[in-house]
Parts: sequence; C-alpha cells; structure tokens
Amino acid sequence: MDAKEFRQRGKEMVDYVADYIEGIEGRQVYPDVEPGYLRPLIPNTAPQEPETFEAIIKDVERIIMPGVTHWHSPYFFAYFPTASSYPAMLADMLCGAIGCIGFSWAASPACTELETVMMDWLGKMLQLPEAFLAGKAGGGGGVIQGSASEATLVALLAARTKAVRHLQATSPGLTQAMIMEKLVAYASDQAHSSVERAGLIGGVKLKAIPSDGKFVMRASALQEALERDKAEGLIPFFVVATLGTTSCCSFDNLLEVGPICHQESLWLHIDAAYAGSAFICPEFRPLLNGVEFADSFNFNPHKWLLVNFDCSAMWVKKRTDLTGAFKMDPTYLQHSHQDSGLITDYRHWQLPLGRRFRSLKMWFVFRLYGVKGLQAYIRKGSNKLNEALLEKINSARKIHLVPCHLRDQFVLRFAICSRTVESDHVRFAWEHIQGLATELLRA
Amino acid sequence: MDAKEFRQRGKEMVDYVADYIEGIEGRQVYPDVEPGYLRPLIPNTAPQEPETFEAIIKDVERIIMPGVTHWHSPYFFAYFPTASSYPAMLADMLCGAIGCIGFSWAASPACTELETVMMDWLGKMLQLPEAFLAGKAGGGGGVIQGSASEATLVALLAARTKAVRHLQATSPGLTQAMIMEKLVAYASDQAHSSVERAGLIGGVKLKAIPSDGKFVMRASALQEALERDKAEGLIPFFVVATLGTTSCCSFDNLLEVGPICHQESLWLHIDAAYAGSAFICPEFRPLLNGVEFADSFNFNPHKWLLVNFDCSAMWVKKRTDLTGAFKMDPTYLQHSHQDSGLITDYRHWQLPLGRRFRSLKMWFVFRLYGVKGLQAYIRKGSNKLNEALLEKINSARKIHLVPCHLRDQFVLRFAICSRTVESDHVRFAWEHIQGLATELLRA
Repeated sequence: MDAKEFRQRGKEMVDYVADYIEGIEGRQVYPDVEPGYLRPLIPNTAPQEPETFEAIIKDVERIIMPGVTHWHSPYFFAYFPTASSYPAMLADMLCGAIGCIGFSWAASPACTELETVMMDWLGKMLQLPEAFLAGKAGGGGGVIQGSASEATLVALLAARTKAVRHLQATSPGLTQAMIMEKLVAYASDQAHSSVERAGLIGGVKLKAIPSDGKFVMRASALQEALERDKAEGLIPFFVVATLGTTSCCSFDNLLEVGPICHQESLWLHIDAAYAGSAFICPEFRPLLNGVEFADSFNFNPHKWLLVNFDCSAMWVKKRTDLTGAFKMDPTYLQHSHQDSGLITDYRHWQLPLGRRFRSLKMWFVFRLYGVKGLQAYIRKGSNKLNEALLEKINSARKIHLVPCHLRDQFVLRFAICSRTVESDHVRFAWEHIQGLATELLRA
Repeated sequence: MDAKEFRQRGKEMVDYVADYIEGIEGRQVYPDVEPGYLRPLIPNTAPQEPETFEAIIKDVERIIMPGVTHWHSPYFFAYFPTASSYPAMLADMLCGAIGCIGFSWAASPACTELETVMMDWLGKMLQLPEAFLAGKAGGGGGVIQGSASEATLVALLAARTKAVRHLQATSPGLTQAMIMEKLVAYASDQAHSSVERAGLIGGVKLKAIPSDGKFVMRASALQEALERDKAEGLIPFFVVATLGTTSCCSFDNLLEVGPICHQESLWLHIDAAYAGSAFICPEFRPLLNGVEFADSFNFNPHKWLLVNFDCSAMWVKKRTDLTGAFKMDPTYLQHSHQDSGLITDYRHWQLPLGRRFRSLKMWFVFRLYGVKGLQAYIRKGSNKLNEALLEKINSARKIHLVPCHLRDQFVLRFAICSRTVESDHVRFAWEHIQGLATELLRA
C-alpha cells in the first residue's frame, strides 16, 4: 500500500469508525458467539500473496464484529468504563505516524517533554500537591503507564528497593532475600486483584486489611495489622489505598491511613484508577484530601477522562525513588544530555523499555474539550437539566417537589411529608422520576 | 467534536500522516532542541475553554515536530528499527474505535481469538515447533506483549514460580525467600539491558556469561558457570539466549546451549527481539535451529515486520507455566466460559490487566502484504536488482566480476585474483560497487 492508496483507505476507515460509533446503539452489546467461533472462519495460515483491502474490510464485519463485546455501547455496564473520544483517536493516528519509541529524552525530545508538561497540566487540574509536579527542576513528576496494574507494581518495586537499601545500610549483614522474606505490603480487602498480583511478582507478602461496614479501609484495622506483624518480626513497608474500589467504588480513608504511613515510614501508594478523573471537579476534590501523605498516586484517564486506552497517569514525589530502583544505562542508550538533570529518561520510570507518544492524546483531549468541557463530561448532568426535570415533574401533577440551591448546584429536594406515606408511594415516585428523566435525556 | 467534525478532521489527519511520511526524508533526522525547549512554548495549565482543531494542528508543526527524532527517516540508523506501515496504521484506527479491553475471552471474544490465531499464523511462518502453537486444543500458544522486556520478565517470573514450587514440593521446609536467595539466571554478557532488569525486578541473581570472540554465548562458558554455582549451593533455573544482540547482532549458539538447558532442567527463553523477523525467510530459518529446546520464544514484529509498535510476539510451550504463575480470579472478572479449556484469558499471560486489540494490526499487515510480500521486505534486494547491479558494474569497466547461482539466489562473486592486488584495490572496488548500488536503488 503506497501513500496514495493510504489516503483513500484512510478516509474510508475514518468513515467506518464514525459509522461504527454513531451506530453502536444498534449493535448487540454482548456477542452470541461460543468459544472457538473465529478459527473456522479464518484460514489456517497467512496468505502467501497479498489480499485486497476490500476483502479485509468485508471480513471485519463478517468475522470480527460478531465477536466483539461493544465497550462503547450505551448498554455496556460491565467491568468499568474505558474512555473513547474523537480527539484522542485523531491524536493516536498522529502517534502511529510519528512512531517514535520514547524511552529516553534523546529518542524523541518532544515525546518526553510533552509528557512531562501534560502530566503537570493534569496534576494541576487535580490540585495535586506541588511536590508531585515536575515543573522546571522539581524532584517529582508524572509518567504515563500502560495500566494501573503496572503503576502499582512499579510503586511496590520502588518501595521494596528503598526498604532493602535502608535496612542494609543499618544492618550490613542482611541479604536481600533475608529482608524480602520479612517485608509486608498492605491493602484493603476491597483492593483490585492487581495489587495482590504485584505482591506475588515482587516476591513479598501482601496482607488484606479488613474494610469496615462501608467497605472502607480505616486506621484501626491497619494499625492492628501493623502492630501484630511487627511483633512477629515482620517489616511493613508499603500500603495501597484505593479511591474508588472495583466492586462498589468505596474510598479508603486517606486522612486516617495517610498519617499512619507517614509516622511508620511506609510507602503510601494511592490507586484511584476508577474514580480519579472526578477530582478535576472542585466539588469532588475533597475526596482526594490526604494525597499529601502519599509517595505515589495513580489514576486512569483512559477510564473516565476521554483519553483512549492506554493512558494511566502516575505521579511520584521523589523521582529518584523510581530511577534508583530501575536504572540501567547500557552504552547504546546513553546520550550527551544523560546527566543534565533538566531532563527525564522515562525508561527508568516504567517496566518496559519501549513506549509510544501517548501524551499527544492528552494534549488533543485537554485542548479540544478544555477543563470546563472535561468537568461537564464528569458531571454529565447540569443545573439546566435539573431545572427542566423539576418542571416536567411538577407539570405532570403526579407528585410534587420543590428545589433548593446547595452552593452552585440546583438540587431537587425529596421530602417524606404526609403521615400516610408508605414505601409503595416512595417507589412509585422514584419510578415516575426515573421515567421523566429518561424522556428528558432522550430528547 | 461530533461524528461530523471527526469525519472532516480524520480525513485531514490521514492526509497529514501521508504528507509526513512522504516528506520525511526532507526533515532533519535528529532535532536541534536543547532539554527544556518545549515548556516555554506551551501554557502552564490546560485551557479552561475548548480550543479549535486548527490551533492544535498548527502547534503540531510549531511545537512538536521541531523536537521529534524521526524514527522513520531513511537517515535514522540509531537504536533499532521500529516498524511502520500503512496497513498497520489503518488497523490501529479500527483498534481505537472498537476500544475494547481484552483481558479475558468474554471481555471481547474477537480480540482474544484473533490474537490466538494470528500468533499461530506467525508461528507457522517461522516454522516454530508444533508445541508452541495453540491450535484447537494445544497446551502452548502465543500472546502479544507490549515489549520484549515484558516478555523476558514474564518468562523469568514464570520460571521462578515453577522452580520455587518444584523445590518446595521436594523440600517442604524451604520458604520462598530461602529459595529465591539461591536462584540464578544466566544470559550472555551481550544480552539486552532488560534481561538484567528482569533479574532485579524478580529479585534473583542474574549472571553474565562471557561471550566468545564473536560475541556468542557458547556451551563451555555456560557449563562452567553452572558447575561453579552449583558447587556453591546456588540453584540455576533460567537462561536467556539472544538471537541478534543489540550491540552487534550476534547469535548465541542455541544448538549448544539448548541441550544443556534441557539436561539441567533450566527454563530456556529465547530473546530474538531484533533479528527474529528474518526467520520467516527459509534461508534465514536455520539460525533459529535449536528453538525446540526453548520453553519460551519472543521476537518483535514491531521492529522489522511492518507491524507498528507495540507488538512483541511471545510463545510458550506450556501455557500453564504462565497462567499458574499469575492467575488471579476475582469475581468481577469471572465469566461462564472461565474453565471451558477451549479459551484463553490473556490477562494471565501478561503483567498488566488491560490490553488493546493489537492482533488487528497483524491481521491487516499479514493479509495486505502476504507472506511473500513480507519476505521480500526482509530481503529487500531481489535477484533482478542484483542482475542489474552486475550489469552496471561490468559496463562501467572499472572492475570486473562474474555471477553465480546459489540455489535460487543470484549472487555477485568477488574473487581476489591478480598477484598484484593490494588492500587499496579492494577498497576502491568496494567503494565503486557501493556507489553504483546507491545509484541503482535511487533510480
């Protein structure tokens, strides 16, 4: 395929993509296929001679689409949201064309520097403490990881290295294995499965802290586990606090857990993969209070901030904690700016060596939506919508409500008033409100 | 941005991409910028209000391109090749639109099954032993990893788990830490830096085997290290053999190293990241002889097989070695086909949970090039080109050569004939041939 044909096929593909997304509501969200459906539809070996593009596009509808679970269907409520937006897709096209592998500053300065600046932009949107920003000469900064699982693993490995070095400095007789045997990491029993996996990979114990009745990790349970383990000669070193657990979106109590980690010199990693995007709205930002106690913080713009997968945002306060744990400098990766201090070689911040130019997606999305557009997407509803809903409810004459303002928010108040109200009445009212709200959103 | 605007902007982006690639020879391959160049060109925070697409595209040329190292410039000879082709870019557009996260079969059956079948196609192109293929009920199979670094790490972690379990089964008193302290992995002193890093992350010793005069890891050096370490009470468990080392593309001697690993029950991982694509040509396939001794094999189609980054192909003989090491099954990821045995949940085969629909790229590239097209790309030259070069050389009358056929290859023979030849004559001839070859390739 030459450039001329690509110009034609690329434009056809743009239309195919737009058609797919515009028509996705009409596709069945979960496929009917059984395991093994695809193999009989496809040859056993790659073709010897080239095929035509038409043949392939026909097969996309014939072979691929019948087996796709449509994550962007409005009827998809499984797992978690994965972000998708036209600006991010345009940026990914550019990313594919530039096709650089930005493992070091020199391997593509723009790739590295745009990432650092975009992570600062995003950090400011979240009002992260200054220490997490790279700025011009900051010791912290952000990095795009492929997934929250990798961010957790990177944090755990950095914390492990730090703990081992610290203990060996005070007790030179200890081997790494002797220390690792005693290291313990902690997370709520509601933490994501990737946290347990990070413990397995890192070769350290990972203990689940029983969450409270609202599925929240609290100080008392953590403190109890720490005391018990220390009494047994174990060495606590790492805590993961989750903001927005996978099962029910509960939030660990950072303002309780943070000070304990600080006091006990434990690395605190915050996994806000699922809920973190909401913190760009000032009204949700209080849920992040306590982040100042963390050593590392992570959330997934590729879940809820319109940046297509993969884009998992991770910040650390001390970049040397990461680079110290992972740094390898073979000659063929060195460059003249290696030690200038002004620059970042992201290969020391992540597990793989190679990396794509993913910050382009953030740049396109942040600029084409603006912070206000992104906040509106998180909020989705608006005061106007709420006002219109109240108008509909009251003109239907089946139930009656009055509104209030809570600061800037137009809120529909639902008060149980009459002496004769039963739960059936409340249920009827709720279903009535839902029906009208659905009509309104459709229109 | 709505679908209508995306149709317009997407087509403009297709033209921008084609223009970029068609004009890349005219861009300076390595940028002039100094560290920190980008920050002053860009605002300190994300814009509050949305910007226009025109503004962003203008900034791509103003801010991004001056800082790009152009990996696809024909003057780029640094690091390693990274693949780029129009078919792969088209497939990536589709991948972005579908935007599924294929961590399990149910999360998108097409994503999982196309990957399994594409890895079988590719395995057959390389003539991998049957045991590496998934087939309908095979115990082996392939997976797309993000990078060779991840493949090496996954192999090392699986081998570590296997070794620990095996030793604990025979000596139940041993703790994981007691075993890990004694585990030793081996690789040539020419192996990629990511191998050493995998050892660091995995918390095991990694010893460099001195390569021979041609930078090849040989039996004698490996055997010597194994004997010495076993005598010291250490436990060898893992060997990485490299086919195509980063510094000079040397090949470890698989036919020597393989049998040793087999005999000593060491996990043999083959890292052919750089050179592996060549094995789709029958004339290069002998360089892969000995792969039958390996437990895992990896190479990067995203380097030299026209599939854009990221696409690192990894095969294992026993899939349970991987899934046994990493399996975690929280309720929210379970599905009704979980244990059917017919299917693959790729999240157990890799470090992250999330994954993109990367096999689309392989499918598009394999079909639009055909195996013959891919082989021609690896060979680049052809018999016809060689014949034309000989014609040019002999009609220029400065030197004289005759050709031969070696099987199907038209080969230019260069024999040192005259009693009076000095090295200066050979150098002159070589430069003359290079000059004519360059002219021919330009035309």
